Amino acid sequence: MESGHQEITMPATQADEYQEIAWGVQKFGEKFTPFYINRPNVGPKQVKFKTLYSGVCHTDLHKVKGHFGPGNVYPYVPGHEILGEVTEIGEGVTKFKVGDHVGVGCFVDSCMECEQCEEDYENYCDKGVTETYDHVKKFGRVLGNKDMRTWGGYSGSNVVHEHFCLTIPKDLPVENAAPILCAGITMYDPLQNHGFTTGKSRTVGIVAIGGLGTMGIKIAKALGHTVVAISTTSAKEQLAKDKGATHFVASKDPESIKAMANSCHIILNTVAANHDINTYMPLLKKGGVIVQIGAAPAPHSISQIPLMFNRQSIAGSLVGGIKNTQEILDFCAKHQIWPDAQMIKFDQIDWAFEQLETNNKDGIRFVIDVQASIAAG
Amino acid sequence: MESGHQEITMPATQADEYQEIAWGVQKFGEKFTPFYINRPNVGPKQVKFKTLYSGVCHTDLHKVKGHFGPGNVYPYVPGHEILGEVTEIGEGVTKFKVGDHVGVGCFVDSCMECEQCEEDYENYCDKGVTETYDHVKKFGRVLGNKDMRTWGGYSGSNVVHEHFCLTIPKDLPVENAAPILCAGITMYDPLQNHGFTTGKSRTVGIVAIGGLGTMGIKIAKALGHTVVAISTTSAKEQLAKDKGATHFVASKDPESIKAMANSCHIILNTVAANHDINTYMPLLKKGGVIVQIGAAPAPHSISQIPLMFNRQSIAGSLVGGIKNTQEILDFCAKHQIWPDAQMIKFDQIDWAFEQLETNNKDGIRFVIDVQASIAAG
Repeated sequence: MESGHQEITMPATQADEYQEIAWGVQKFGEKFTPFYINRPNVGPKQVKFKTLYSGVCHTDLHKVKGHFGPGNVYPYVPGHEILGEVTEIGEGVTKFKVGDHVGVGCFVDSCMECEQCEEDYENYCDKGVTETYDHVKKFGRVLGNKDMRTWGGYSGSNVVHEHFCLTIPKDLPVENAAPILCAGITMYDPLQNHGFTTGKSRTVGIVAIGGLGTMGIKIAKALGHTVVAISTTSAKEQLAKDKGATHFVASKDPESIKAMANSCHIILNTVAANHDINTYMPLLKKGGVIVQIGAAPAPHSISQIPLMFNRQSIAGSLVGGIKNTQEILDFCAKHQIWPDAQMIKFDQIDWAFEQLETNNKDGIRFVIDVQASIAAG
Repeated sequence: MESGHQEITMPATQADEYQEIAWGVQKFGEKFTPFYINRPNVGPKQVKFKTLYSGVCHTDLHKVKGHFGPGNVYPYVPGHEILGEVTEIGEGVTKFKVGDHVGVGCFVDSCMECEQCEEDYENYCDKGVTETYDHVKKFGRVLGNKDMRTWGGYSGSNVVHEHFCLTIPKDLPVENAAPILCAGITMYDPLQNHGFTTGKSRTVGIVAIGGLGTMGIKIAKALGHTVVAISTTSAKEQLAKDKGATHFVASKDPESIKAMANSCHIILNTVAANHDINTYMPLLKKGGVIVQIGAAPAPHSISQIPLMFNRQSIAGSLVGGIKNTQEILDFCAKHQIWPDAQMIKFDQIDWAFEQLETNNKDGIRFVIDVQASIAAG
């Protein structure tokens, strides 16, 4: 296949599987359509749930469209911000009972034996985490046809090992909880790892005020920090301040950078396109860290002398483990914060992708109302 | 002056000063000679000491020779690993009494008010720390002629505010303690800041097996960690293992890198010349940090994608504050470790610089025996 991707024929449903509706892309480059996939029947330690909501992440767009390179397998069903209601539990399940709200994020299995897994960083599993969609089933906790890859959350139901299922607190609105499973943990995890979830109030910079950025502002503020929102121009100043930012920097304006120079203890940089990290370094305090969160392919030119003289760090972060994901869900429930979500139905997925591709001016997360989509048939 | 440096005439000794012998460079580009400098008399909170030993740091060489750019003032007296015996104390001094062993490291004053100073990072003072030599007296704790810069430790005595004086534990050999004040703290501080002075045994990589590297090996081993020594070729393998390294990587050999891939939780990179940081990144575990310690001027090309997927960081570090310096002195006394030192007299300083400039093959720290130098007169 010219694109470097692979197309397969959906196999017959096995004896240990059932059929389920999904919305995905049948062949590389095509639009979304509904079709049937096979899901595994419930086994020991497995949790089956009816999907209520499925968030639409910018990464879904990148992956479905093959932006990260060749190797996709089509039909392709994305979705890794999944919110459901438990309908059946397997033998030995202790975390859930039928009727509970349950969440599944970016991955559904990992080796559970390596140093990363043991330290609750399943997302960095040394043997390679099994992502929620388009990933090979390696470790045995995703049941059903072993030759098929994982299918994502744009689908009517799912069956996942309970370790990889999150408990959704009762006082979180289920339609808004879905994006916490990716956007929320993505912004919380670096704050947790770099010591910003305990201790005194500090100053947190957030670069790019989209879906990740607005959620970052809310979390950092709820943690008691002062937030500096950073965007190329002042177009998003009001939005950022409405979400809780105290200060705003228009990064294309040297005077604006200068006004907030040496102010941030940490900067969460969510820019997902190529950029020059040195634009933001002057905003960092001595002892500060800038965490790169977006998948920017072009390398940065970084001088180590200012890193040394200012005791600064450049770090990377990619979602988070199950423990921290549960922590941010509980934190969001306690502080009554969540991503701004706009409900869509399955026939609006292509339209939502277009919005994400142009400019997410309102910092909104699109969320598929799965049951309404099924009802709309 | 063509070099961009400045030459001054030594002013007359003020009423609040005394004359002291020093070894320094009279004019840019000249060799070391003895000459007299003015030191301040003891004031409140000040500690006067007779210099016993003064370590010779690679930075002394860089600075005296103007490698860090223009702006030096000559006559120039370097030295920031100073070990002395207290001979007089000013009013209000509580940390020292006459006869105590005292140490002074890389700086002798800071603002004592900024966030960095308040958090025991005087070395990163927001207003700019006053270094032990060739620095403007800004904050009032270095007495004497305000128009003169600070003079370093290659000198018969010194007077320093007690906050910037370290207590030398009784069971540290004084001739070896001097280099702990720079080489020791330089290697200890990043281990402390990144969480390697408590908790379980991990794997520490040390790049470049010179004066800093060998001290780093000893400290990391005494902290209970496994040490991976990293050098361009296998020439220093035996030296590194003699100092306590368990593993050795010859970084010019891809097979040697491969054999220890993903092994290090932290890498302390002491290479002080231009280099490619990406040589060492494959040695880093997921979640690991590489700390750049040497002043390498050329920038690095760094891709953020592997930083993200591996939750890795690139950090910088430059000596350490008073609190951590005292901590490493006490730690070295407790574990009976210290830099390997070779005593020299003042007439061997130029020779010692030559050794440092070529290749410090034995990882030895040269230390001036100051009282023997005075006696040799």
